[in-house]
Amino acid sequence: MLYEDVAQRLERLIHDGTLLPGHRLPSVRHLRDRWGVSVATAQHAFRVLETRGLVEARARSGYYVRDTPRLWLPAPEPAAPRPETERLRGLSVLRETATPDLVALGTALPDPQHLPLHALGRLATRISRESPELAFGYALPPGPAPLRRVLAAHAADAGATVQPGDIITTTGVMEAMYLCLAATTRPGDRVLVQSPTYFGIIEKIQFMGRVAIEVPSTAEHGIDLGSFERLLAEGPAACVLVPNFNNPCGSVLSDQDKARVVSLCTRAKVPLIEDDIYGELVFEGQRPTSLKSFDRKGWVLSCCSVSKVLSPGLRVGWVVPGRFYDAVLDAKLAVSFASASLPQLVVAAYLESGGYDTHIRRLRTAYREQVTAVGLAVRRHFPAGTRCTRPAGGHVLWVQLPEGVDAIALYRRALRHGVGIAPGPLFSPTGRHSGFVRINCASPFDERTDGALAKLGELARADQLSPKRVARAAR
Amino acid sequence: MLYEDVAQRLERLIHDGTLLPGHRLPSVRHLRDRWGVSVATAQHAFRVLETRGLVEARARSGYYVRDTPRLWLPAPEPAAPRPETERLRGLSVLRETATPDLVALGTALPDPQHLPLHALGRLATRISRESPELAFGYALPPGPAPLRRVLAAHAADAGATVQPGDIITTTGVMEAMYLCLAATTRPGDRVLVQSPTYFGIIEKIQFMGRVAIEVPSTAEHGIDLGSFERLLAEGPAACVLVPNFNNPCGSVLSDQDKARVVSLCTRAKVPLIEDDIYGELVFEGQRPTSLKSFDRKGWVLSCCSVSKVLSPGLRVGWVVPGRFYDAVLDAKLAVSFASASLPQLVVAAYLESGGYDTHIRRLRTAYREQVTAVGLAVRRHFPAGTRCTRPAGGHVLWVQLPEGVDAIALYRRALRHGVGIAPGPLFSPTGRHSGFVRINCASPFDERTDGALAKLGELARADQLSPKRVARAAR
Repeated sequence: MLYEDVAQRLERLIHDGTLLPGHRLPSVRHLRDRWGVSVATAQHAFRVLETRGLVEARARSGYYVRDTPRLWLPAPEPAAPRPETERLRGLSVLRETATPDLVALGTALPDPQHLPLHALGRLATRISRESPELAFGYALPPGPAPLRRVLAAHAADAGATVQPGDIITTTGVMEAMYLCLAATTRPGDRVLVQSPTYFGIIEKIQFMGRVAIEVPSTAEHGIDLGSFERLLAEGPAACVLVPNFNNPCGSVLSDQDKARVVSLCTRAKVPLIEDDIYGELVFEGQRPTSLKSFDRKGWVLSCCSVSKVLSPGLRVGWVVPGRFYDAVLDAKLAVSFASASLPQLVVAAYLESGGYDTHIRRLRTAYREQVTAVGLAVRRHFPAGTRCTRPAGGHVLWVQLPEGVDAIALYRRALRHGVGIAPGPLFSPTGRHSGFVRINCASPFDERTDGALAKLGELARADQLSPKRVARAAR
Repeated sequence: MLYEDVAQRLERLIHDGTLLPGHRLPSVRHLRDRWGVSVATAQHAFRVLETRGLVEARARSGYYVRDTPRLWLPAPEPAAPRPETERLRGLSVLRETATPDLVALGTALPDPQHLPLHALGRLATRISRESPELAFGYALPPGPAPLRRVLAAHAADAGATVQPGDIITTTGVMEAMYLCLAATTRPGDRVLVQSPTYFGIIEKIQFMGRVAIEVPSTAEHGIDLGSFERLLAEGPAACVLVPNFNNPCGSVLSDQDKARVVSLCTRAKVPLIEDDIYGELVFEGQRPTSLKSFDRKGWVLSCCSVSKVLSPGLRVGWVVPGRFYDAVLDAKLAVSFASASLPQLVVAAYLESGGYDTHIRRLRTAYREQVTAVGLAVRRHFPAGTRCTRPAGGHVLWVQLPEGVDAIALYRRALRHGVGIAPGPLFSPTGRHSGFVRINCASPFDERTDGALAKLGELARADQLSPKRVARAAR
């Protein structure tokens, strides 16, 4: 076999996602023994791939697949404001896409097999045996001191200086954000949100009788600072931003933009509510900073939870409300008085244990590989014109469908074929993003996932070709 | 010793609470051996006490102390509308009165030693070991089916026919009531509440920007139906009632009045939110019915929790929202999305176990004895003119202080002497009941409790005598 054939075979393995970025290429000896290729030819082939930028040599270790842009689809364009499409409700989508018989690419739930459930269980056992009165007695707001202590250390990883006394624990980040909105806004008030952003935030704001105002966001840079500044000048009551790995588009605000956003809100005296539940899920290197880390005057209300890193059913979240501490504490007492004690003590014990660092390292690696694998599969299976994000953290992809393919129509047809996805309009208060779908990559990539993505591509292609659907999409 | 001396000694033991109602008198043999009293004299003394209505003979068992009104203080009078006094916040009182160094008669918390904490711990262990994915994964609203199944059975004990599908689980009854108010009222709306009623309800309504309107309530009959009907005619947005063992006054609405209240609200199309967390704590016989059991048209939103019967830190509550099911489900998703899973599964398992019936029987007996013991101690220690409720369930007493004794002044001074009580104005949105204090009886009665009540009586007497305090009370 010629070196070019060897190079092409290896290149296909890479494009098919059999060899993922970071994976080691077969060794020279392997190619000789299994492919019947001479050492010289093998080495030549490696060098060819290296010059094509697909692999890199590592001293005394061999050749490794590089994570090059060439493996990826182009990034989505800013969503063209399309006409309002039919509104879907987050929960109905959740219910329809979280059923076990479905390939659940629609929900952004973590995969239990990646979570330290048995460690959590052992801690629940120990705590409820050793201190039942703490495990089942009231944990009055602001919440158990041991938990607030470890959370303060946690906040330092995101660059923020937080004291245990600055923290109020909540029933998940969803309650934390509800309390922040209740403490800082009134019915009829306008609240700035990114677009796209998590539908739970949008539906919460709308439920409270507030008006969600969209700040255009791109996958590359997060919110458009120009628009943000303009809309801020119109005097909204508050802003809700997801600064790191925004669900669904994966955007991360640069430190410079974070500093700018915080100073703009501080100057305008507009409360800035941040939801930083994905920051821990950076694929490589240090986790990105929180908006809180740029907060000098206490205008940032920083919300977080362990739902994405430990387990969602713990419902352990917290908020650092800055200057709104008293108002948020009042809100907590009025809304649910206290949160369940045992889960809070379990989380405190787990975060204190050395286990957390090992766990989060594994989780980051798993998500990086899975997101890459799904991204490559979308590239393989979806029709030409498809675009896709390439996040540096989190576990979802934001896929822009070719012109004429309507996300809700695709969502409906995919359901009938046993595949769950989240249609774009969910992520906008005005039904934008009807050309997008969000795909969850939290589960290990396997044939079933690949088959589901192939089916999605097939359906998208059909939609693309059917004038009826084009018409529907345009409606 | 003469029979009269024997009778008087026994009578003192009864009035001192050494022999509580239901307790067995020393036997004839005991009196003979220990008191050196002839059998004839002992039997004569018993008969004397019997004619005085203090004891009763039980066939082949001996003489038992009767629970006669003579042992009790007169019932409180309807609170005279006094001028608005300084407002206290529930949490500050909670914080100040829940400290371990204090004799905590101020908080209505159950005593851990009466709660099945170890059984709950064993269940937490089993569930988190056997099904970690359920224990720590999401329990999406309306909540875990196994829990809703046992809760439906639970509702039948209160006379209501409820299907598991009618129930939404919540983070304690406090969130349940918040969701009901959020689903049925808007800012500025008027909400009818009993007066006195639990301050958590009042502060919740006020936090939400609704206006709490007081319906006068008496310990004997609960709300005054005439006033209720009048106020209902003024078109409030909702009512919140505690039909059974209303905290603090212990009132229970008769079935007739319950039926009337429900039909009035149904006719007026006014949502009726009930908080029935004390119904299970009836001292004797069957638990009282819920308002839900009289609901035919779905206008009753029935809230409950296990905080008073199992443990408050579980934060497992639920609501049967009737015709407001969808609105309450939306509210749940918007407010906290889901509640912690493990505590809900623990409660489901415990309620299903035979353990619950035994536990609740023990709890009812313990509370009956403790409430009686505290009532008798108040009678012994408090100044003349003191009045006190005599509830048939729950674990609090509502004590009316003599003219001139101000509850908040007494509360403050009691704190300095290491005794916590809850001052009456907490239980009114307009600072009424400044002549009342609530005393918690959830803990076993002992010398410490008796000493605390003696100190309270002493302080009340001093207040009563000090013109300065009378003046302050009148202010």
